[in-house]
This record gives sequence, structure tokens and C-alpha cells, in this order.
Amino acid sequence: KHILVVPGDGIGQEVTAVGKKVLEKIAEKFGHEFTYDEALIGHVAIEATGNPLPEETLEKMKASDAVLFGAVGHPKYDNDPSAQVRPEQGLLKMRKELGLYANLRPIKLFDELLGASSIKPEILKGSDILFFRELTGDIYFGEKGRKNEGDTAYDIAEYSRYEVERIARKAFEAAGTRRKKLCSVDKANVLETSRLWREVVQAIAPEYPDIEVEHQFVDSAAMMLIKDPKRFDVVVTANLFGDILTDEASQIAGSMGMLASASVGDSTGVYEPIHGSAHDITGKGVANPLASVLSVALLLDISFGLKEEADTVIAAVDKLLKDGFRTRDIADASTPSEKILNTEAAG
Amino acid sequence: KHILVVPGDGIGQEVTAVGKKVLEKIAEKFGHEFTYDEALIGHVAIEATGNPLPEETLEKMKASDAVLFGAVGHPKYDNDPSAQVRPEQGLLKMRKELGLYANLRPIKLFDELLGASSIKPEILKGSDILFFRELTGDIYFGEKGRKNEGDTAYDIAEYSRYEVERIARKAFEAAGTRRKKLCSVDKANVLETSRLWREVVQAIAPEYPDIEVEHQFVDSAAMMLIKDPKRFDVVVTANLFGDILTDEASQIAGSMGMLASASVGDSTGVYEPIHGSAHDITGKGVANPLASVLSVALLLDISFGLKEEADTVIAAVDKLLKDGFRTRDIADASTPSEKILNTEAAG
Ligand SMILES: CC(C)[C@H](C(=O)O)[C@@H](O)C(=O)O
Ligand SMILES: CC(C)[C@H](C(=O)O)[C@@H](O)C(=O)O
Repeated sequence: KHILVVPGDGIGQEVTAVGKKVLEKIAEKFGHEFTYDEALIGHVAIEATGNPLPEETLEKMKASDAVLFGAVGHPKYDNDPSAQVRPEQGLLKMRKELGLYANLRPIKLFDELLGASSIKPEILKGSDILFFRELTGDIYFGEKGRKNEGDTAYDIAEYSRYEVERIARKAFEAAGTRRKKLCSVDKANVLETSRLWREVVQAIAPEYPDIEVEHQFVDSAAMMLIKDPKRFDVVVTANLFGDILTDEASQIAGSMGMLASASVGDSTGVYEPIHGSAHDITGKGVANPLASVLSVALLLDISFGLKEEADTVIAAVDKLLKDGFRTRDIADASTPSEKILNTEAAG
Repeated sequence: KHILVVPGDGIGQEVTAVGKKVLEKIAEKFGHEFTYDEALIGHVAIEATGNPLPEETLEKMKASDAVLFGAVGHPKYDNDPSAQVRPEQGLLKMRKELGLYANLRPIKLFDELLGASSIKPEILKGSDILFFRELTGDIYFGEKGRKNEGDTAYDIAEYSRYEVERIARKAFEAAGTRRKKLCSVDKANVLETSRLWREVVQAIAPEYPDIEVEHQFVDSAAMMLIKDPKRFDVVVTANLFGDILTDEASQIAGSMGMLASASVGDSTGVYEPIHGSAHDITGKGVANPLASVLSVALLLDISFGLKEEADTVIAAVDKLLKDGFRTRDIADASTPSEKILNTEAAG
């Protein structure tokens, strides 16, 4: 199996290095032969080639069996809204070109981290949500631009029946292997794309008679996720709503630094932490690498079908936490300083 | 002063009746003469006239000094994405026709409700956020429809410089009277409307040198609101992001049932709870009327300039809570059953 490592920007570099180390250890332990290559994306790619997703990177991605991804972004562009070339364009183009229409974001709290969240333990305990975020449509990919001599900006959100149906089916199927509850999130009281979304989910629901389907408006879902996270099993939603709700839901898992994601679709799967490039902590050795490590578990499971290997990775993370080790983001007042790990040691 | 009462649908009826009673008491206590009228909107208006915002209602709104509003919505339409006439159209048309471009949503926790939230008290204590949600632009009001024989749906998000500037200025000014921090929330790494938004906020910031301005991406803001609500003072954001973030932030105030809002702009101001029509609890007498009561306080303060009267209303809510009285949504295990109030008694 050939794995392409694409660390990208900021802490993407540090955490992906740890993820790769875990892949190597798994290969050794289970006698697999994994080969690796690296490629550029984001700000580092712009600096080196002028292009946030160089053709070479894209080719390498298509030719590999899985991609271990870091993060993209740089404050330079965030502070300059008129920048024409931006790191995020690399990420979005990758998603589109690889047809990565389904972004899976499991939000599961490790019991040891019950105290690390800002939400009360009794509200959190037992939460286990799997998000399916649509990843190649919506307002992210519709036409956008300026008119009236630059005085008016616009973005077009678009969804086709086909696009909604394929992500909805993935979510229904996943719900079938879990607690058999699906919550579809939209804003059908205002948006036409959401009305189509709801129509499609309603239309295919009878094909999954054992799944209990619920529709929620996005504003209400944003509230319920915090008020009562346990009521959710599988959640399926559009690209923009998924972006917002999964970041919010990171608080259910204690920290953003614990959240992994898998983006799958028509071609090579891409595995990455949900967190961003976090330039404010880059190079300080305090980044939590566990999101990258857990992304490796998803990679082994989903792209390689190596369930036992994936479980081994998750068990190792669990043991690390049970032994009391913490990175800074998940440490609390009771964590002794010798158990606070830097990025490398946590790996 | 002439006040138009527009209860709308579901619990809108019950809670607005309580809000009106509070207005009457204040008028009596302070010797004001308020006159009242009522009008239809939403589902009840569709049933009576076929129109979610009858011309008569709109005329009455324009002719009054303030509107006390309830809620609109009905499950019938939520379950039928293809319905052509919908209660929410009445609400959106009202916002547009009255030019209500600024929606103020204060998120303030009453100390007595520290325990009612799903967020830990030590995270919450001292939170006090004022949201400025833009209310007449964005993807709510751009063109929307179907193409490809109904197989593709689209919604256009749009903002002009002028629209961003007027709401941003309101937020800067409000920050000046508070803790002098403004957080502008957008998704400028992806959306063109957000890039315009950020440009405009950056451009006018130098005119408010005493305000500390920060820009956050909406996904990150959705996380930070729960992780560290105290870091926010005034938040300004677009229509859709404001819809999602303020519902989420209701958890900071203990319950949605405590949140009031003021919509102001070019004409009569409209005051309403943030919560919806909640048909599941309609007519049961369990709805929390305090959001409507606190909306009355905003009405007195903002539209009538009656600060002392507004403070009297807030003090009464505070006393009710201090005396241990609770509606069901904010009660907890320690609330004795005789202190659990129904909607009317809470008024
Ligand atoms: C960096 C940004 C464009 C991206 C997104 O909005 O999809 C990120 O927030 C994510 O969730 O992967
Ligand atoms: C009912 C709905 C159209 C409305 C909105 O999205 O604006 C509501 O959620 C609100 O926040 O006032």
C-alpha cells in the first residue's frame, strides 16, 4: 500500500509527522509493507510553486492508496480578503478533483476526557455522533464574485438531487450499523437548496425502514448539540452547515485536537484532523497530534480495511489517556506537569 | 405610544399575551398611556387570508410606534418542502419591508440560572454577549429557485458594501458603550460575501480607535462560543451565521426561553423572543414567557427610550428567579414543584 503524506501548513507539519510514525509502527507490528511519499499543498505550495495545489501533488494523490493530510491556511491571507491566491483553494480543489463528497467526522468522547470539555460531564457522558458532511457542493463550489463595480459580492449555493442522494445514502447505511437514528440538518424554512435536500432525504427514507429519521433546522441543531448531544447518532448535512456544526461539536469531544476526519468518494480517500493550521502555536511543540493519530485509524479502517490495526491505534490513544498523559489542550488543573506531553512524545 | 401586538403561531400566542400584560402593568405603574392593536402573521394569517403577511398587518406595523412579536411556523410546512406559501415568508417579508436590518440579540446569563445550562458554571459565569445579526440580506433574500427541470436547487447569497457598513457601524457603536471588543464573524477563507464583509469591517475600524476588533471564521466562532463564551463582547455577523450562532448561544443563557431580540432599522422596531412557535408544547401552559417579557424591556428601552421602565422589567425577572420560581425549561431537580410556574403565572 502506498500512502501520500501531505502535511500542508502550520501545525499540519508537526502532527502529520506523528501520524506517519504511527503508520510505520503499525506496519512493523502487523508485518505490512507501506510505502510513503510527500507532497505540497496550501501556503507552503504557494511559496514553492505559486500554486496552492500543484499538478504534481494532485497526480501523486490520485496514484496513491490513501492520503494522510495535515492542514492548510496562513494568517497572511486571512488578513487580506482581496488576496487572489489562497491556501484554502488547494484544499477545495483537492476535494473536488478527487470527488471527496463524503466527509465523515466521528465525535466521540474518550471517557478520560469527560472533564476536559466546557460541557457538563452528565450531559456529555455516552455521546457518540457520526457526522456526514457533504464536501463537494453547496455555497463552497457555486459561482462567486463581485458586481456593481465591486460593491456587491455574491456566492451561489447549489445542490442537485444526485449530490444529496449519494451522501444521504451513505449516512443511512452508516446509521444501520449503529443506533439506527439519522438526523438530517437543513434550513428548509428558508433555503431552496435545503428544501431539495429535505425532499430527497424524505424520498429515500422508506428504503431504510429500520432507520428512524428526523429533520432539524440548522439553528435548532446548533442548540441541541450542546443541550443534549446524546440524542444524536448519525447526522447528515450540507457542506457549510457541516463545517460549522462539527467545529462546534468538537466541544463534545473535549478538544478540537482529538477530532479526526475521513473524506471519501470516487477516488483516493483523504484523512485529516478537523483542526486548522493554528499558526499561533506552530513550532512550539504543544499541538495535540491525536487527531492525526486517530485519522490514521480511520485510514487503516476505511481505505485499507484493516480493522484490527485501526482498533490497535485507538486502544493506544485510550491507554495514553488512561495513563494520565495529556497534551496542553486537554490537560486540566489536576494533570501533573510531568504528564503533559509535547507533540512528539504524545506520538 | 401605540403598540401593535402580533402573536403569530404556536406558543407565540401564549407568550405574547404575557408580554402585553407586562406592558400594561408598566404603563399603569409609570403613568404612561399605551394603546394597543393586534394583527395576524404566519400560519394563522395564511389560514385566515391566504397570505402570511396580509397588507393590513404591514400597514398597521408601519403606523405603530413598536411591534411586539411572537413567532411564526407550523410543522405542516416543515414536513412539506414543496409548499409554495409558508409562514416564514411573512416574517422575512416583514423584516424586508420594515427595513429591519439590525437584529440585536443580547445573551446574558441571569446568575440564578448558572446551573440550568449544559455548560459548566465556571465557564459561563460573567458571560455577556451582544449579537448584531444582519437581518435583511445574505442568502435569505437573494434569488432562489430550481433549474435542470427541478433537479438542481440554488440560493444566492449577496451583500453590498452599504449593507455591511450600516450593521457594522451599529456594532462598533454598541461596543463603545460596553467592553470595547468587537468580534466580526465570517467565512472569508471561502465566501466572496465574507471577503467583502471583512474588507468593510477592516476599512471602518480605524474610525473606532478605542474598539479592539477581531475577525473569526464562523466554524471557529461556533466552537469558541462554547469553549470560552467570556471572551466575546459584541459580535457582528451575517444573517445566516447569526441565525445559527445565536441559537447555539442560547445555551449560554441557560435556555432559549430566556432570549429576547430587537430588530431595528429604517422604520418601526420589532421585538420578539428568539425561540420559535414550538407546536409541540403549544397550549400546554409550559412555555417560558420570559423571552417575551425581556423583549418588552428591549422595546421600552430602544423604541421608547424608557430606560427606567425597562430596568424595572428586568429587575422583576431577576426577582422572580431569585425567589426560586422557574418555568419547566429552566427548572432543575432542586426546584420544588410549587415553584414551577405555568406560562401565565410567570407573567
Ligand atoms: C479551511 C477551510 C476552507 C475548511 C472548510 O471550511 O471546509 C476547514 O474549515 C475544514 O473544515 O476542513
Ligand atoms: C423562522 C426562521 C425563518 C427565522 C430565521 O431563520 O431568521 C428564525 O430562525 C429566527 O431566527 O428568527
